[in-house]
Amino acid sequence: MSATDASTPPATPSTTPGKVQLTPADWIRAATEVLVDKSIDAVRVDVLAKGLKVTRGSFYWHFQDRDDLLKQLLRSWRDAATEQIINRFERSGADPEALVRELASLPFRGTAAFNSASIELAIRAWARRDDMARQVVDEVDAKRLSYVSQCFVALGYNFQEAGMRAFVLYSYMISESLMRGQGTETQRQQRREFVEKFLLQKP
Amino acid sequence: MSATDASTPPATPSTTPGKVQLTPADWIRAATEVLVDKSIDAVRVDVLAKGLKVTRGSFYWHFQDRDDLLKQLLRSWRDAATEQIINRFERSGADPEALVRELASLPFRGTAAFNSASIELAIRAWARRDDMARQVVDEVDAKRLSYVSQCFVALGYNFQEAGMRAFVLYSYMISESLMRGQGTETQRQQRREFVEKFLLQKP
Repeated sequence: MSATDASTPPATPSTTPGKVQLTPADWIRAATEVLVDKSIDAVRVDVLAKGLKVTRGSFYWHFQDRDDLLKQLLRSWRDAATEQIINRFERSGADPEALVRELASLPFRGTAAFNSASIELAIRAWARRDDMARQVVDEVDAKRLSYVSQCFVALGYNFQEAGMRAFVLYSYMISESLMRGQGTETQRQQRREFVEKFLLQKP
Repeated sequence: MSATDASTPPATPSTTPGKVQLTPADWIRAATEVLVDKSIDAVRVDVLAKGLKVTRGSFYWHFQDRDDLLKQLLRSWRDAATEQIINRFERSGADPEALVRELASLPFRGTAAFNSASIELAIRAWARRDDMARQVVDEVDAKRLSYVSQCFVALGYNFQEAGMRAFVLYSYMISESLMRGQGTETQRQQRREFVEKFLLQKP
């Protein structure tokens, strides 16, 4: 769901400059910002250190090298993207229909959804030419699809039907967040209801 | 449709090096490759000139500046992406059902579809932070959606229903090309049939 609320807050040093005590998470946030604003090639230790107003050397307290940072960035995105959907499932109790409706509304959750979708899109673009990123994106898609499938299994569909419906719902979510400019507010509302109604038909 | 066959062939000078006679299209192809392999920030006149084995100066025979190149790159992508769908419509004659099936099969058209989807994804990522790119992407999405809607109007749906069905089909196409790794060949086939069957139900 390029349209979740697993967004990353802006990178700010944990303490005031001059006496900064950066955590690995600070570096990962800064790297994620550069990935979205520029590209993965622009994610370089010197660029990040300059942005965070610290020396290059302090980077190596937390990471072996740039590759280690990229790995941790992906892992951090994967965990946020996965946990966030698991949490929704646990909060929702036993009502799969409410959960389908909630998932369909995710792309419309304002700035957080937008930022989160921008991060995800940048990672997907990177994954077109990097195996490590590709693997993590595939893993996240697979996990989300498998969770969404469970809703439809709970609604009484067999595994195959549930998987197909999950794919349609997930596709819809990705596309709404990719195409925020398409249609009026009313049209977006109508197509959401259309998708929900279709997917929630009793088997 | 991040999954079309409007792909761009690799950039090669029109004649042998030493006596190169580059066209604007050569520069645009080279720029598109760099956009996909690196990022829009890496699309710089000096980098392209080096890759094409010509002097920077020859760039200015064709383009006012880098911005002019980027504008023409977007225009070229937009035209390819739009023409390609219009051509399908004209070739298909009067059979909207066959056209829906053809559109649903587009993401599975091999390497050309993959390359084309990679270009589109890179442009979408760029469009998250650039208004000029954003406008062109919105325009392409709108045009494709309006063509796809026509299929459903021809099948007897009213405009509103046709628009919603077009959105679902287009979402499906984008997502299949984004998530090539998801599911087995059989599962991909099943979900394609599922989407077609649903969308082609007589009104």
